[in-house]
Amino acid sequence: MKNIAVVLAGNGVYDGAEIHEATLTLLAIAQQGAAYQCFAPDVDQAHVVNHISGEEMPETRNVLVEAARIARGNIKALSEYKAADYDAIIFPGGFGAAKNLCTFAFDGLDCKVNPDVEKAIKATVEAEKPVGALCISPAIIAKVLGDVKLTIGQDKGTADALESLGATHVTTTHGEIVVDEKYKVITAPCYMLDATITQIADGASNVVAKMLEMA
Amino acid sequence: MKNIAVVLAGNGVYDGAEIHEATLTLLAIAQQGAAYQCFAPDVDQAHVVNHISGEEMPETRNVLVEAARIARGNIKALSEYKAADYDAIIFPGGFGAAKNLCTFAFDGLDCKVNPDVEKAIKATVEAEKPVGALCISPAIIAKVLGDVKLTIGQDKGTADALESLGATHVTTTHGEIVVDEKYKVITAPCYMLDATITQIADGASNVVAKMLEMA
Repeated sequence: MKNIAVVLAGNGVYDGAEIHEATLTLLAIAQQGAAYQCFAPDVDQAHVVNHISGEEMPETRNVLVEAARIARGNIKALSEYKAADYDAIIFPGGFGAAKNLCTFAFDGLDCKVNPDVEKAIKATVEAEKPVGALCISPAIIAKVLGDVKLTIGQDKGTADALESLGATHVTTTHGEIVVDEKYKVITAPCYMLDATITQIADGASNVVAKMLEMA
Repeated sequence: MKNIAVVLAGNGVYDGAEIHEATLTLLAIAQQGAAYQCFAPDVDQAHVVNHISGEEMPETRNVLVEAARIARGNIKALSEYKAADYDAIIFPGGFGAAKNLCTFAFDGLDCKVNPDVEKAIKATVEAEKPVGALCISPAIIAKVLGDVKLTIGQDKGTADALESLGATHVTTTHGEIVVDEKYKVITAPCYMLDATITQIADGASNVVAKMLEMA
Protein backbone atom coordinates (compact mmCIF):
# COMPACT_ATOMS: atom_id res chain seq x y z
CA MET A 1 0.00 0.00 0.00
CA LYS A 2 1.38 3.40 -0.98
CA ASN A 3 1.80 5.90 1.83
CA ILE A 4 1.39 9.65 1.35
CA ALA A 5 2.62 12.38 3.69
CA VAL A 6 0.08 15.20 4.14
CA VAL A 7 1.50 18.50 5.42
CA LEU A 8 -0.99 20.66 7.31
CA ALA A 9 -0.52 24.37 8.01
CA GLY A 10 -2.81 24.56 11.04
CA ASN A 11 -6.59 24.25 11.11
CA GLY A 12 -8.77 26.85 9.41
CA VAL A 13 -8.74 28.68 6.07
CA TYR A 14 -7.71 32.16 7.28
CA ASP A 15 -4.73 31.25 9.48
CA GLY A 16 -4.12 27.54 8.93
CA ALA A 17 -4.90 24.61 6.64
CA GLU A 18 -8.16 24.89 4.69
CA ILE A 19 -10.26 22.23 6.39
CA HIS A 20 -12.23 20.98 3.37
CA GLU A 21 -9.08 20.70 1.23
CA ALA A 22 -7.25 18.89 4.02
CA THR A 23 -10.09 16.49 4.85
CA LEU A 24 -10.90 15.76 1.21
CA THR A 25 -7.22 15.09 0.51
CA LEU A 26 -7.26 12.45 3.28
CA LEU A 27 -10.52 11.04 1.86
CA ALA A 28 -9.11 10.90 -1.69
CA ILE A 29 -6.00 9.07 -0.50
CA ALA A 30 -8.04 6.48 1.43
CA GLN A 31 -10.61 6.07 -1.36
CA GLN A 32 -7.80 5.39 -3.84
CA GLY A 33 -6.39 2.62 -1.68
CA ALA A 34 -3.40 4.38 -0.16
CA ALA A 35 -2.46 5.27 3.41
CA TYR A 36 -1.64 8.70 4.80
CA GLN A 37 0.37 10.24 7.61
CA CYS A 38 -0.22 13.84 8.63
CA PHE A 39 2.66 16.20 9.43
CA ALA A 40 2.95 19.85 10.47
CA PRO A 41 5.80 22.10 11.52
CA ASP A 42 6.09 22.54 15.29
CA VAL A 43 6.01 26.37 15.24
CA ASP A 44 3.61 29.07 16.37
CA GLN A 45 1.06 30.29 13.83
CA ALA A 46 1.83 33.70 12.28
CA HIS A 47 -1.38 34.85 13.97
CA VAL A 48 -4.86 33.68 14.96
CA VAL A 49 -7.85 34.93 12.96
CA ASN A 50 -11.49 35.00 14.09
CA HIS A 51 -13.16 33.17 11.18
CA ILE A 52 -16.43 35.12 11.55
CA SER A 53 -15.12 38.69 11.82
CA GLY A 54 -11.82 38.24 9.99
CA GLU A 55 -10.13 40.11 12.85
CA GLU A 56 -6.90 39.03 14.48
CA MET A 57 -7.35 37.48 17.94
CA PRO A 58 -4.90 38.16 20.81
CA GLU A 59 -3.86 34.50 21.10
CA THR A 60 -0.96 32.24 20.27
CA ARG A 61 -1.60 28.83 18.73
CA ASN A 62 0.85 26.17 17.58
CA VAL A 63 0.59 24.89 13.99
CA LEU A 64 1.26 21.24 14.92
CA VAL A 65 -1.16 21.27 17.88
CA GLU A 66 -3.98 22.88 15.86
CA ALA A 67 -3.36 20.67 12.79
CA ALA A 68 -3.77 17.66 15.12
CA ARG A 69 -7.49 18.51 15.20
CA ILE A 70 -7.77 17.62 11.49
CA ALA A 71 -5.58 14.54 11.99
CA ARG A 72 -7.55 13.34 15.04
CA GLY A 73 -4.31 13.36 17.04
CA ASN A 74 -2.37 11.17 14.61
CA ILE A 75 0.24 13.64 13.43
CA LYS A 76 4.03 14.03 13.47
CA ALA A 77 6.33 17.03 13.54
CA LEU A 78 7.47 17.77 9.99
CA SER A 79 11.09 17.64 11.20
CA GLU A 80 10.59 13.85 11.46
CA TYR A 81 9.62 13.47 7.78
CA LYS A 82 11.92 11.21 5.76
CA ALA A 83 11.29 11.04 2.02
CA ALA A 84 12.47 7.42 1.98
CA ASP A 85 9.51 6.38 4.15
CA TYR A 86 6.78 7.82 1.89
CA ASP A 87 5.74 7.53 -1.75
CA ALA A 88 4.68 11.17 -2.15
CA ILE A 89 3.98 14.34 -0.21
CA ILE A 90 1.04 16.75 -0.53
CA PHE A 91 0.31 20.25 0.74
CA PRO A 92 -3.40 21.16 1.03
CA GLY A 93 -4.04 24.92 0.93
CA GLY A 94 -5.49 27.63 3.14
CA PHE A 95 -3.83 30.90 4.15
CA GLY A 96 -1.69 28.94 6.63
CA ALA A 97 0.30 27.60 3.69
CA ALA A 98 1.26 31.19 2.85
CA LYS A 99 1.54 32.38 6.47
CA ASN A 100 2.94 29.47 8.48
CA LEU A 101 4.67 27.19 5.93
CA CYS A 102 6.11 30.20 4.16
CA THR A 103 5.53 33.96 4.48
CA PHE A 104 4.23 34.59 0.94
CA ALA A 105 1.01 36.20 2.25
CA PHE A 106 3.04 38.82 4.09
CA ASP A 107 6.27 39.16 2.11
CA GLY A 108 5.41 38.14 -1.48
CA LEU A 109 8.52 37.44 -3.57
CA ASP A 110 10.78 37.99 -0.55
CA CYS A 111 9.02 35.32 1.47
CA LYS A 112 10.89 32.89 3.70
CA VAL A 113 10.06 29.18 3.68
CA ASN A 114 9.93 27.23 6.95
CA PRO A 115 13.19 25.17 7.01
CA ASP A 116 11.40 21.85 7.63
CA VAL A 117 9.04 22.56 4.73
CA GLU A 118 11.93 23.42 2.39
CA LYS A 119 13.85 20.31 3.46
CA ALA A 120 10.78 18.08 2.94
CA ILE A 121 10.14 19.40 -0.57
CA LYS A 122 13.79 19.17 -1.65
CA ALA A 123 14.24 15.68 -0.21
CA THR A 124 11.08 14.42 -1.95
CA VAL A 125 12.12 15.91 -5.31
CA GLU A 126 15.64 14.46 -4.92
CA ALA A 127 14.05 11.06 -4.26
CA GLU A 128 12.08 11.55 -7.53
CA LYS A 129 8.78 11.21 -5.71
CA PRO A 130 5.68 13.32 -6.45
CA VAL A 131 4.85 16.56 -4.65
CA GLY A 132 1.22 17.70 -4.65
CA ALA A 133 0.05 21.23 -3.80
CA LEU A 134 -3.47 22.66 -3.66
CA CYS A 135 -4.83 26.21 -3.66
CA ILE A 136 -2.09 28.70 -2.61
CA SER A 137 0.44 26.00 -1.60
CA PRO A 138 2.07 26.08 -5.07
CA ALA A 139 3.57 29.41 -3.94
CA ILE A 140 5.80 27.45 -1.53
CA ILE A 141 6.85 25.09 -4.33
CA ALA A 142 7.68 28.03 -6.62
CA LYS A 143 9.82 29.66 -3.92
CA VAL A 144 11.71 26.40 -3.23
CA LEU A 145 12.10 24.98 -6.76
CA GLY A 146 11.91 28.03 -9.01
CA ASP A 147 11.43 26.79 -12.58
CA VAL A 148 8.36 24.65 -11.98
CA LYS A 149 5.13 24.45 -14.02
CA LEU A 150 2.10 24.93 -11.76
CA THR A 151 -1.33 26.49 -11.24
CA ILE A 152 -3.06 28.59 -8.62
CA GLY A 153 -6.15 28.97 -10.81
CA GLN A 154 -6.89 32.34 -12.39
CA ASP A 155 -5.69 35.10 -10.04
CA LYS A 156 -3.39 37.21 -12.21
CA GLY A 157 -1.57 38.99 -9.35
CA THR A 158 -0.62 35.73 -7.67
CA ALA A 159 0.23 34.03 -10.98
CA ASP A 160 2.52 36.92 -11.95
CA ALA A 161 4.27 36.73 -8.57
CA LEU A 162 4.90 33.01 -9.00
CA GLU A 163 6.27 33.63 -12.50
CA SER A 164 8.62 36.23 -10.99
CA LEU A 165 9.90 33.42 -8.76
CA GLY A 166 10.78 31.48 -11.94
CA ALA A 167 7.63 29.35 -12.23
CA THR A 168 5.47 28.86 -15.32
CA HIS A 169 1.83 29.44 -14.45
CA VAL A 170 -1.00 27.64 -16.26
CA THR A 171 -4.52 29.06 -15.90
CA THR A 172 -7.01 26.40 -14.80
CA THR A 173 -10.60 25.96 -13.70
CA HIS A 174 -12.38 23.59 -11.28
CA GLY A 175 -11.04 20.05 -11.13
CA GLU A 176 -8.16 20.68 -13.54
CA ILE A 177 -4.60 19.82 -12.52
CA VAL A 178 -1.20 20.87 -13.84
CA VAL A 179 1.65 18.36 -13.95
CA ASP A 180 5.33 19.28 -13.97
CA GLU A 181 7.01 16.16 -15.35
CA LYS A 182 10.56 17.22 -14.44
CA TYR A 183 9.96 17.74 -10.72
CA LYS A 184 6.83 15.51 -10.50
CA VAL A 185 4.86 18.43 -9.05
CA ILE A 186 1.06 18.23 -9.36
CA THR A 187 -1.08 21.28 -8.54
CA ALA A 188 -4.79 22.22 -8.54
CA PRO A 189 -6.55 25.54 -7.79
CA CYS A 190 -9.24 24.36 -5.33
CA TYR A 191 -10.44 27.33 -3.20
CA MET A 192 -8.18 29.79 -5.08
CA LEU A 193 -11.28 29.71 -7.31
CA ASP A 194 -14.79 30.49 -6.01
CA ALA A 195 -15.48 26.77 -5.62
CA THR A 196 -18.07 24.45 -4.09
CA ILE A 197 -17.08 21.67 -1.74
CA THR A 198 -17.80 19.08 -4.47
CA GLN A 199 -15.32 20.88 -6.74
CA ILE A 200 -12.73 20.69 -3.94
CA ALA A 201 -13.34 16.94 -3.69
CA ASP A 202 -12.77 16.64 -7.46
CA GLY A 203 -9.57 18.72 -7.36
CA ALA A 204 -8.07 16.81 -4.44
CA SER A 205 -9.06 13.47 -5.97
CA ASN A 206 -7.48 14.33 -9.34
CA VAL A 207 -4.21 15.47 -7.75
CA VAL A 208 -4.01 12.36 -5.56
CA ALA A 209 -4.75 10.07 -8.53
CA LYS A 210 -1.90 11.62 -10.55
CA MET A 211 0.46 11.47 -7.55
CA LEU A 212 -0.25 7.76 -7.05
CA GLU A 213 0.23 7.14 -10.79
CA MET A 214 3.62 8.91 -10.75
CA ALA A 215 4.75 7.47 -7.41
CA MET B 1 -33.22 23.00 -3.95
CA LYS B 2 -33.57 21.52 -0.46
CA ASN B 3 -31.67 23.31 2.28
CA ILE B 4 -30.21 21.50 5.29
CA ALA B 5 -29.11 23.11 8.56
CA VAL B 6 -25.84 21.66 9.90
CA VAL B 7 -25.18 22.20 13.61
CA LEU B 8 -21.50 22.25 14.58
CA ALA B 9 -20.21 21.82 18.14
CA GLY B 10 -16.88 23.57 17.63
CA ASN B 11 -13.90 22.36 15.59
CA GLY B 12 -12.00 19.23 16.62
CA VAL B 13 -12.93 15.74 17.77
CA TYR B 14 -11.95 16.03 21.45
CA ASP B 15 -13.64 19.32 22.36
CA GLY B 16 -15.73 20.27 19.33
CA ALA B 17 -17.23 18.95 16.10
CA GLU B 18 -15.43 15.98 14.57
CA ILE B 19 -13.90 17.58 11.48
CA HIS B 20 -14.19 14.65 9.07
CA GLU B 21 -17.82 14.00 10.01
CA ALA B 22 -18.66 17.71 9.66
CA THR B 23 -16.84 18.18 6.34
CA LEU B 24 -18.15 14.95 4.84
CA THR B 25 -21.70 15.88 5.89
CA LEU B 26 -21.33 19.14 3.94
CA LEU B 27 -19.87 17.19 0.99
CA ALA B 28 -22.72 14.65 1.05
CA ILE B 29 -25.33 17.42 1.08
CA ALA B 30 -23.72 19.20 -1.89
CA GLN B 31 -23.11 15.98 -3.83
CA GLN B 32 -26.77 15.04 -3.43
CA GLY B 33 -27.92 18.34 -4.91
CA ALA B 34 -28.97 20.17 -1.75
CA ALA B 35 -27.72 23.35 -0.07
CA TYR B 36 -26.50 23.73 3.50
CA GLN B 37 -26.24 26.41 6.17
CA CYS B 38 -23.96 25.91 9.17
CA PHE B 39 -25.05 26.87 12.68
CA ALA B 40 -23.48 26.69 16.13
CA PRO B 41 -24.47 27.90 19.58
CA ASP B 42 -22.78 31.16 20.61
CA VAL B 43 -21.35 29.82 23.90
CA ASP B 44 -17.91 29.06 25.28
CA GLN B 45 -16.61 25.53 24.83
CA ALA B 46 -16.73 23.33 27.94
CA HIS B 47 -12.93 23.27 27.68
CA VAL B 48 -10.08 23.26 25.15
CA VAL B 49 -8.16 20.02 24.57
CA ASN B 50 -4.66 19.68 23.08
CA HIS B 51 -5.35 17.13 20.31
CA ILE B 52 -1.84 15.64 20.52
CA SER B 53 -1.48 15.17 24.29
CA GLY B 54 -5.17 14.92 25.20
CA GLU B 55 -4.49 17.41 28.02
CA GLU B 56 -6.73 20.36 28.80
CA MET B 57 -5.29 23.73 27.70
CA PRO B 58 -5.67 26.89 29.83
CA GLU B 59 -7.70 28.70 27.16
CA THR B 60 -11.25 29.78 26.44
CA ARG B 61 -12.69 29.31 22.96
CA ASN B 62 -16.17 30.07 21.62
CA VAL B 63 -18.10 27.27 19.91
CA LEU B 64 -19.52 29.52 17.16
CA VAL B 65 -16.18 31.20 16.43
CA GLU B 66 -14.28 27.89 16.25
CA ALA B 67 -17.01 26.18 14.21
CA ALA B 68 -16.69 29.04 11.69
CA ARG B 69 -13.35 27.48 10.70
CA ILE B 70 -15.17 24.44 9.30
CA ALA B 71 -17.83 26.69 7.71
CA ARG B 72 -15.24 29.02 6.13
CA GLY B 73 -16.90 31.93 7.96
CA ASN B 74 -20.40 31.23 6.61
CA ILE B 75 -22.16 30.34 9.85
CA LYS B 76 -25.05 31.62 11.97
CA ALA B 77 -25.78 31.52 15.68
CA LEU B 78 -28.10 28.59 16.40
CA SER B 79 -30.51 31.00 18.15
CA GLU B 80 -31.34 32.28 14.63
CA TYR B 81 -32.42 28.85 13.36
CA LYS B 82 -36.03 28.65 12.18
CA ALA B 83 -37.36 25.21 11.26
CA ALA B 84 -39.64 26.80 8.65
CA ASP B 85 -36.61 27.95 6.63
CA TYR B 86 -34.95 24.52 6.31
CA ASP B 87 -35.92 21.06 5.09
CA ALA B 88 -33.96 19.15 7.71
CA ILE B 89 -31.32 19.55 10.40
CA ILE B 90 -28.24 17.41 11.08
CA PHE B 91 -25.77 17.11 13.97
CA PRO B 92 -22.33 15.72 13.07
CA GLY B 93 -20.50 14.17 16.03
CA GLY B 94 -17.32 14.68 18.01
CA PHE B 95 -17.00 15.11 21.76
CA GLY B 96 -18.26 18.68 21.40
CA ALA B 97 -21.74 17.28 20.76
CA ALA B 98 -21.59 15.71 24.24
CA LYS B 99 -19.68 18.58 25.89
CA ASN B 100 -20.93 21.81 24.27
CA LEU B 101 -24.35 20.96 22.76
CA CYS B 102 -25.24 18.94 25.84
CA THR B 103 -23.27 17.77 28.87
CA PHE B 104 -23.66 14.00 28.35
CA ALA B 105 -19.85 13.47 28.41
CA PHE B 106 -19.68 14.96 31.90
CA ASP B 107 -23.10 14.27 33.45
CA GLY B 108 -24.45 11.17 31.67
CA LEU B 109 -28.17 10.68 32.26
CA ASP B 110 -28.40 13.96 34.20
CA CYS B 111 -27.00 15.97 31.30
CA LYS B 112 -28.34 19.38 30.35
CA VAL B 113 -29.01 20.29 26.72
CA ASN B 114 -28.09 23.74 25.40
CA PRO B 115 -31.42 25.63 25.14
CA ASP B 116 -30.90 26.62 21.48
CA VAL B 117 -30.10 23.00 20.61
CA GLU B 118 -33.20 21.72 22.41
CA LYS B 119 -35.38 24.36 20.74
CA ALA B 120 -33.98 23.54 17.28
CA ILE B 121 -34.62 19.81 17.66
CA LYS B 122 -38.15 20.25 19.04
CA ALA B 123 -39.11 22.83 16.38
CA THR B 124 -37.82 20.57 13.59
CA VAL B 125 -39.70 17.54 14.93
CA GLU B 126 -42.87 19.61 15.35
CA ALA B 127 -42.53 20.72 11.73
CA GLU B 128 -42.29 17.01 10.81
CA LYS B 129 -38.90 17.50 9.19
CA PRO B 130 -35.98 15.05 9.48
CA VAL B 131 -33.30 15.26 12.17
CA GLY B 132 -29.96 13.57 11.44
CA ALA B 133 -27.36 12.74 14.09
CA LEU B 134 -23.92 11.13 13.71
CA CYS B 135 -21.53 9.46 16.17
CA ILE B 136 -22.35 10.56 19.77
CA SER B 137 -24.91 13.23 18.74
CA PRO B 138 -27.81 10.76 19.10
CA ALA B 139 -27.29 11.22 22.87
CA ILE B 140 -28.66 14.75 22.53
CA ILE B 141 -31.68 13.46 20.59
CA ALA B 142 -32.36 10.81 23.24
CA LYS B 143 -32.22 13.39 26.03
CA VAL B 144 -34.59 15.75 24.16
CA LEU B 145 -37.08 13.27 22.63
CA GLY B 146 -36.88 10.24 24.93
CA ASP B 147 -38.61 7.34 23.13
CA VAL B 148 -36.64 7.47 19.90
CA LYS B 149 -35.07 4.60 17.94
CA LEU B 150 -31.39 5.32 17.22
CA THR B 151 -27.82 4.02 17.05
CA ILE B 152 -24.44 5.00 18.41
CA GLY B 153 -22.85 1.84 17.00
CA GLN B 154 -21.76 -0.90 19.38
CA ASP B 155 -20.63 0.68 22.66
CA LYS B 156 -22.73 -1.08 25.31
CA GLY B 157 -22.22 1.48 28.09
CA THR B 158 -23.38 4.37 25.92
CA ALA B 159 -26.21 2.35 24.40
CA ASP B 160 -27.46 1.37 27.87
CA ALA B 161 -27.37 5.02 28.97
CA LEU B 162 -29.43 6.08 25.96
CA GLU B 163 -31.95 3.32 26.70
CA SER B 164 -32.18 4.63 30.26
CA LEU B 165 -33.21 7.96 28.71
CA GLY B 166 -36.08 6.15 26.99
CA ALA B 167 -34.46 5.45 23.63
CA THR B 168 -34.36 2.13 21.78
CA HIS B 169 -30.81 1.38 20.68
CA VAL B 170 -30.03 -0.63 17.54
CA THR B 171 -26.51 -2.04 17.18
CA THR B 172 -24.94 -1.11 13.83
CA THR B 173 -21.70 -1.33 11.90
CA HIS B 174 -19.99 0.94 9.33
CA GLY B 175 -22.28 2.72 6.88
CA GLU B 176 -25.50 1.45 8.47
CA ILE B 177 -28.20 3.90 9.51
CA VAL B 178 -31.18 3.64 11.86
CA VAL B 179 -34.44 5.39 10.99
CA ASP B 180 -37.08 6.41 13.53
CA GLU B 181 -40.20 6.84 11.40
CA LYS B 182 -42.25 8.57 14.11
CA TYR B 183 -39.83 11.42 14.78
CA LYS B 184 -38.03 11.21 11.39
CA VAL B 185 -34.71 10.80 13.22
CA ILE B 186 -31.85 9.24 11.22
CA THR B 187 -28.64 8.17 12.98
CA ALA B 188 -25.32 6.52 12.07
CA PRO B 189 -22.35 5.45 14.24
CA CYS B 190 -19.45 7.01 12.25
CA TYR B 191 -16.42 7.47 14.58
CA MET B 192 -18.23 5.84 17.53
CA LEU B 193 -16.80 2.80 15.71
CA ASP B 194 -13.10 2.40 14.91
CA ALA B 195 -13.69 3.73 11.40
CA THR B 196 -11.72 4.87 8.36
CA ILE B 197 -12.43 8.20 6.71
CA THR B 198 -14.06 6.41 3.75
CA GLN B 199 -16.48 4.73 6.18
CA ILE B 200 -17.32 8.17 7.61
CA ALA B 201 -18.07 9.40 4.08
CA ASP B 202 -20.40 6.41 3.59
CA GLY B 203 -22.19 6.97 6.91
CA ALA B 204 -22.71 10.70 6.33
CA SER B 205 -23.84 10.09 2.77
CA ASN B 206 -26.37 7.43 3.80
CA VAL B 207 -27.86 9.64 6.54
CA VAL B 208 -28.11 12.64 4.22
CA ALA B 209 -29.75 10.53 1.47
CA LYS B 210 -32.42 9.29 3.89
CA MET B 211 -32.96 12.81 5.27
CA LEU B 212 -33.51 14.19 1.76
CA GLU B 213 -35.88 11.30 0.95
CA MET B 214 -37.96 11.97 4.10
CA ALA B 215 -37.81 15.80 3.82
